[in-house]
Amino acid sequence: MVMISTENDVATLVNVFTVEPENQQRLVAMLLEATEQTMKSLPGFVSASIHKSLDGVRVANYAQWRSREDFEAMLKNPDATAHMEPIMEIAKFDAHLYEVVGSLP
Amino acid sequence: MVMISTENDVATLVNVFTVEPENQQRLVAMLLEATEQTMKSLPGFVSASIHKSLDGVRVANYAQWRSREDFEAMLKNPDATAHMEPIMEIAKFDAHLYEVVGSLP
Repeated sequence: MVMISTENDVATLVNVFTVEPENQQRLVAMLLEATEQTMKSLPGFVSASIHKSLDGVRVANYAQWRSREDFEAMLKNPDATAHMEPIMEIAKFDAHLYEVVGSLP
Repeated sequence: MVMISTENDVATLVNVFTVEPENQQRLVAMLLEATEQTMKSLPGFVSASIHKSLDGVRVANYAQWRSREDFEAMLKNPDATAHMEPIMEIAKFDAHLYEVVGSLP
């Protein structure tokens, strides 16, 4: 179960991928595989939730890491980058880290 | 408590605002006020979680609506648009609807 709360002491990654519609489902599968095989075992991983856009041209990853440092260490991990390389061949991404400042209800 | 799950039958809005750093906190306050005063009482509202980026130039709203139709009705609601107009004066936004297709753990 993934929870969003101002009480969670996590760094939140919102990563929005843009992709051709014919590759959206493939990108979803690649991100789920990367998460299952690698990301979830890395230090500081808390959660990842993969979303596909209703317009067919985006996939969003809402992920939680224990800290910005853990997230940045993942970016340098060879197993993680090996997953990201084929993803970069079919998609562009826009990734930023956030802090939850309010949540209702 | 806000939860992300493939079991939730919701339409998920990911809305990323870009803003000048000096207006980031003001934008957060405006979005929280809009949610408290108006959005949370509209039909089909499930949740809204406001995030500020660590780089200072973004605010993201991760919101859940019961359906795409409820979300689209909100866009036409005069109370909702009254909140959005001053927000549009200080920020740009990029909003899209999504379905959760996978979530770990």
